[in-house]
Amino acid sequence: MKVLVIGGDGYCGWATALYLNKRGYEVGILDNLVRRHWDNELCVETLTPIAPIQHRLKRWNELTGKNIDLFIGDITNYEFLSKTLRQFEPEAIVHFGEQRSAPFSMIDREHAVMTQVNNVVGTLNILYAMKEDFPDCHLVKLGTMGEYGTPNIDIEEGYITIEHNGRKDTLPYPKQPGSMYHLSKVHDSHNIHFACRIWGLRATDLNQGVVYGVLTDETAMDDLLVNRLDYDGVFGTALNRFCVQAAVGHPLTVYGKGGQTRGFLDIRDTVRCVELAIATPAAPGEFRVFNQFTELFSVGDLARMVEKAGSEIGLKVEVKNLENPRIEKEEHYFNAKNTNLLDLGLEPHYLSNSLLDSLLNVAVKYKTRVDESQILPKVTWKR
Amino acid sequence: MKVLVIGGDGYCGWATALYLNKRGYEVGILDNLVRRHWDNELCVETLTPIAPIQHRLKRWNELTGKNIDLFIGDITNYEFLSKTLRQFEPEAIVHFGEQRSAPFSMIDREHAVMTQVNNVVGTLNILYAMKEDFPDCHLVKLGTMGEYGTPNIDIEEGYITIEHNGRKDTLPYPKQPGSMYHLSKVHDSHNIHFACRIWGLRATDLNQGVVYGVLTDETAMDDLLVNRLDYDGVFGTALNRFCVQAAVGHPLTVYGKGGQTRGFLDIRDTVRCVELAIATPAAPGEFRVFNQFTELFSVGDLARMVEKAGSEIGLKVEVKNLENPRIEKEEHYFNAKNTNLLDLGLEPHYLSNSLLDSLLNVAVKYKTRVDESQILPKVTWKR
Repeated sequence: MKVLVIGGDGYCGWATALYLNKRGYEVGILDNLVRRHWDNELCVETLTPIAPIQHRLKRWNELTGKNIDLFIGDITNYEFLSKTLRQFEPEAIVHFGEQRSAPFSMIDREHAVMTQVNNVVGTLNILYAMKEDFPDCHLVKLGTMGEYGTPNIDIEEGYITIEHNGRKDTLPYPKQPGSMYHLSKVHDSHNIHFACRIWGLRATDLNQGVVYGVLTDETAMDDLLVNRLDYDGVFGTALNRFCVQAAVGHPLTVYGKGGQTRGFLDIRDTVRCVELAIATPAAPGEFRVFNQFTELFSVGDLARMVEKAGSEIGLKVEVKNLENPRIEKEEHYFNAKNTNLLDLGLEPHYLSNSLLDSLLNVAVKYKTRVDESQILPKVTWKR
Repeated sequence: MKVLVIGGDGYCGWATALYLNKRGYEVGILDNLVRRHWDNELCVETLTPIAPIQHRLKRWNELTGKNIDLFIGDITNYEFLSKTLRQFEPEAIVHFGEQRSAPFSMIDREHAVMTQVNNVVGTLNILYAMKEDFPDCHLVKLGTMGEYGTPNIDIEEGYITIEHNGRKDTLPYPKQPGSMYHLSKVHDSHNIHFACRIWGLRATDLNQGVVYGVLTDETAMDDLLVNRLDYDGVFGTALNRFCVQAAVGHPLTVYGKGGQTRGFLDIRDTVRCVELAIATPAAPGEFRVFNQFTELFSVGDLARMVEKAGSEIGLKVEVKNLENPRIEKEEHYFNAKNTNLLDLGLEPHYLSNSLLDSLLNVAVKYKTRVDESQILPKVTWKR
């Protein structure tokens, strides 16, 4: 089965491309490499030294005998996208190819507009290219749990059945995203849902939680295959950042009270979830939504877990509550369903087991590469 | 009070600008005039001969002694927008400046992408310009009833209180828009809601139904002030198109079974609703939603009403059910609330009274200008 991984040079995309290829899928990577460019622009480097894509793919071929096709270009360029699809003829498209940082989207107007236009137009182009030439192809699209916000009722998977004034309907779950980036994902979801309803396309929206970890079986095979791990104030996510902070003796930076609760998952589960979605595709016309996380934690809980695990390997870890640069509820109800992927057979890696081997020790290994001036948040949500 | 009407050269915008100016508001019009350009591109003309904007404004000044400021430019150009706001210093911004046709957005990929980028970026720019320089200004934004789609439960105004698993919250009403254009309005609503939540901006989203009619007290004052009336397959809306069809002896083109039910309102109520929204602004941080329509009709009902009214003035009217170029439910439940504007004092003009004076007779007056080849729909929703 042929799978095109759009954004296959990024954090989730790279791990997914190798995993699927190892599992027997014929894989192509489409990427414009802009994520590396944004690192340059922000003057930051990922914790782990990541090799140029051509070296990565060459090494992968040497180690496994397997070949991954590479298409370098931008999906907002419809001609390039369409030509690539006709050449590769995918049966599934895994779409990670979006600007994925909330703080990046909140830097200023230009970054907000760029994020929304880039993400919305890229996804629209994929939908039109599928409609035109590959109407039976299955789109597996990376969404985010952040689309839901923090409602005071249980979060279902994409839809909710509402009884109102004696009548009943199952409708898209209401969205309250918390950044210009999260908004772009909400826009995507509405656009994809429409394309499924109107054109009969098939799509799965993976509303993913916060991913942690750097090692998968494949990326751990060789230093040239190592995945990126972002710890900076713009692209670093809570848990990954905490582990790097612990490794270098920087206080763990909890934003605000730390009661913000989110869904989390190990990157080894990200790649497995994508495979599960591909293996059991959505039906024609179906817009299927999976909430892709394995555990719920508050940010404060995470910091305390890293503190404890750090002390087990001799690190002295301090937790510090910063003024929250975001505007978000810091104490709230949060209960989200995630049964669809478990029903398909996902066997989660739990954080308690991953913290030391896949995270803290990796952070310690590369700690000399850390630029501490990049850790604190510089982007604010405030007016 | 100073009000900037963005899109003030268009159908709703022109009528609104004159009405507000007459009522004592200091009015500026910001428009890129692209609506006239799209007529040219589609090789259609509005039923009524509309004068160039400079002649319109000159005549308005001669008749009333009043002056409306004119700013020609595009709000997707942030520098122009920002400069205009600083010059005019609006206390309210009425935003009609979007691509507003569902069929136009469904012509092809280019028109879909253009519609979403144009509408989303324009509105984002307004939000950023307000945040930057006019955080207390009130944004009155034209949304659409089409954001809701046709759910099987009552449609509330923007929000719905949901009880779920023993808990309760009031959340944004779920959206199921039916075209690339309607999707752009859903995206806007989410973006504006966020800006209110995060930056404390104040906004009112007017989820307007289908507008009919051409005359308001102001636009009727002189031939040079006459409003546009679109009857073509791309920009013409149901009732206006039916009346033009009746005038020229063309069968009324009901798409599909005609059970599609929508909210409708007279353009004289559009202008009044905008004034009511301006006069009682949303609170800082409030994203207020009004459903702006006065009556619900099915498309089939409308055709029969036009048939009957036409026969009263001696027109022989035939109703014809076409294959539906859109993909939509043709028989469905539809019950939408519209109490917010009535509570503010709206006294509706009802269709039964407007049909002859403001619509059919106007259509008959200009019927020699009709190009019958432009009436049938050419754009389809199908794959």
